[in-house]
Amino acid sequence: MPDSKESEEDRLIARYFRPLATDPGAFGLQDDAAILTPPPGCDLVLTTDGVIAGVHFFPGDPPDHIGRKALRMNLSDLAAKGARPAGFLMSIALPGTIEESWLSAFTAGVADDAQHYACPLLGGDTDRTPGPLSVSIAAFGTVPHGKMVRRSTAHAGDCVVVSGTIGDAALGMRLRGGAPDAERWRLEPRLRAHLEQRYLLPQPRNALAQAVLEYASAAMDVSDGLAGDLAKLCRASAVATNIDATRVPLSDAAHAAVAADPGLIEIALTGGDDYEILLTIAPEKLTAFSRAAKRAGVAVSEIGRLVEGEGVRFVRDGKTLSFARPSYSHF
Amino acid sequence: MPDSKESEEDRLIARYFRPLATDPGAFGLQDDAAILTPPPGCDLVLTTDGVIAGVHFFPGDPPDHIGRKALRMNLSDLAAKGARPAGFLMSIALPGTIEESWLSAFTAGVADDAQHYACPLLGGDTDRTPGPLSVSIAAFGTVPHGKMVRRSTAHAGDCVVVSGTIGDAALGMRLRGGAPDAERWRLEPRLRAHLEQRYLLPQPRNALAQAVLEYASAAMDVSDGLAGDLAKLCRASAVATNIDATRVPLSDAAHAAVAADPGLIEIALTGGDDYEILLTIAPEKLTAFSRAAKRAGVAVSEIGRLVEGEGVRFVRDGKTLSFARPSYSHF
Repeated sequence: MPDSKESEEDRLIARYFRPLATDPGAFGLQDDAAILTPPPGCDLVLTTDGVIAGVHFFPGDPPDHIGRKALRMNLSDLAAKGARPAGFLMSIALPGTIEESWLSAFTAGVADDAQHYACPLLGGDTDRTPGPLSVSIAAFGTVPHGKMVRRSTAHAGDCVVVSGTIGDAALGMRLRGGAPDAERWRLEPRLRAHLEQRYLLPQPRNALAQAVLEYASAAMDVSDGLAGDLAKLCRASAVATNIDATRVPLSDAAHAAVAADPGLIEIALTGGDDYEILLTIAPEKLTAFSRAAKRAGVAVSEIGRLVEGEGVRFVRDGKTLSFARPSYSHF
Repeated sequence: MPDSKESEEDRLIARYFRPLATDPGAFGLQDDAAILTPPPGCDLVLTTDGVIAGVHFFPGDPPDHIGRKALRMNLSDLAAKGARPAGFLMSIALPGTIEESWLSAFTAGVADDAQHYACPLLGGDTDRTPGPLSVSIAAFGTVPHGKMVRRSTAHAGDCVVVSGTIGDAALGMRLRGGAPDAERWRLEPRLRAHLEQRYLLPQPRNALAQAVLEYASAAMDVSDGLAGDLAKLCRASAVATNIDATRVPLSDAAHAAVAADPGLIEIALTGGDDYEILLTIAPEKLTAFSRAAKRAGVAVSEIGRLVEGEGVRFVRDGKTLSFARPSYSHF
C-alpha cells in the first residue's frame, strides 16, 4: 500500500537530516515548507552559497569538514552583515557512490555546527546526481530593522579593518592540492597543518557580528581574496585606498611561506576562502570596536584608511603590487 | 588593478541576473546578502527545490522552460501552504559547455515568471561545475502569523480535493523520453502536445493560495504522485481514505492514453511533477471554497472523504489498485 512504504530518500532524511531540524518551524522536515518569523522590529538577512566536489573542495576531504564548510561559508556572510543566525535550508545532490557512512559523518559535522552557531536546519532537498557531490545552502539571520551592514556605505576617512589572518586558506589549498612549488616553502609540519586546516575548515567570525553591527560603517566577508573584495567594497562605496601590504595580518605559517617565496604574497592577498570580515569604521569608533572585538575573542587589525577617489592599491617597500588575478573565482 | 577588472562571474551576474533583482532588498545583487521582512503579523514560509539535468529534465529541454520549472516547483509549494510569494534565491551550477545564448533564454524565462508571480530574485550563487547543469532555488512567501496550511491538520470527515488534472506530466515525460510503449497510445498530436507541455512547464496554482489559506484544513503540493502524496498527508494527519480512482480528474489527453492502455492509470496516480494542490476541507466549507476556486480560475475536484484509521486505497470497479511504486522519487 502506498502508505506502508517509505522511499529511500524519506529514510535518509528521517535518519540523517531530521535530527538537525530542531526548530519548531521546521516541522521535523515533514511538511512542504518551514516557517521563520523574525522577531518584531527585525529584518531577515538572506544569503546563499554552496560547494561542488572538485571545484570548492577535494573529493577526499573529510565529510564532516565538507558539511561544516558549506554552512560556515554562509555563516560568514551573516556575520559580515551584523546578523544573528536564525536557520538554513540545505540542498544536497549525492552521487550514487556516496555511502551512508559518508552521509553520517557529513551530517554529524553539520549538526555540530548548527548547534554551535545556533543555526538550525529548517528544510532541504535531497537528490541523486550523475555528477559530483554538491551542497547548496541558503542561510538566514536577523538584524534590527534597516541595520544590515552593507558594502556601499563606507566613507573617505574610515579605517579599513580585517579580522583574523589573511591568505592561510589559499596557501593551504596549494599545499593540499600538492602544488609542486609548495615543497620549496619548507614549512614545518605544525605550520603546514595550520594552513591546510584553515583551508579545510573556515572559522566564521560570528562572534564579531554584534560589534560589526554596532560600529562598522560598511562590511563584507572576505571569501574571494582580500584584494578583490576590498576593491568591491571601495567600488560600491565610491572610495579608494592604498594599503601597505605589510600591515595585512598574516599567520606565522603564512609569514614563513612568504619569507621562503616572496611571490606568495600575491596568493595570500588574492586567494579565496579566508572567511574573515573586512569592515570600515569611523576613526573615533575604532577603540570601542577593538575593545568589543577583544571581548568577542576575535583578533582585528587596522590595515589602512579610505580616501576620496577610485581604486585600491597594495603597496610594499614603496612599490605598488600588481596582481595577475586580483580576485579568486571558482567560476 | 584589482578594481578595474570584473570576473567572468560578475559579468554574467550583472548581465543576466541583476535585471531579475527588482526588489530593493536584493541590493541589485551587489552585496553579500539580501533583506526580506515579512509584513507585520506575518510569518515567512520557506521552501527549497531544484533540478538537475538528466534527473529532473532532459538536457535538451528548452532553457526558458528549465528556469521556469525550477521556480514553479517552489511556487507550487508556497501555493499549497496558502502563502503569497515574496522572493527567491537561486543557485546555479553551469557546465563549461553552456553558452550565453542558453543563459540568456534561461534567465528570460525566470524573469517572466518572477514578474508574473510577483516573486523577485533576491540573491544567488553562480558556479561552474564539471557535472550536469543544476539549479537550486529557495523560495519565500508570507502567511498571516500561525496560519501556514500544514499536512498534519486534516480531520476524519473532511473532503479530499485536488486542483487541475492528475497524471499529465508523468505521461508527458514518457512521451518525451521516447518510451517504446507510448506509440501504442495512438494520441492525436494535440493531446500528445498537451501531456508533453504539462511535463515541461508546471502550472503552479498560486491563484488558489488565498482560498487554500481560507478554507483548507490541510494541504500539500502534489509533486511525487497523488497516491504517495495523499498517503503522506493521511499519515501526517493520522487519518485514512478510500479513493474511487474514477473520480480523480484526468485531462482529455490522459483519458485517451488510459483508454488505450488501462495500466497507465498507475502512472497517472503515482507519477510525479503534477504540481497541483491536494487539500482537505470540512464538508460545510466545500461550496464556499469551490466558489472561490472558480473566481480564481482554477478547476478543483472532490475525489473522496477522509475516515478514521490508517492507510490510503485507490479503488476502481470495486477492486483495490495495487501499485508497484506508490510514489515517484528522483532519488
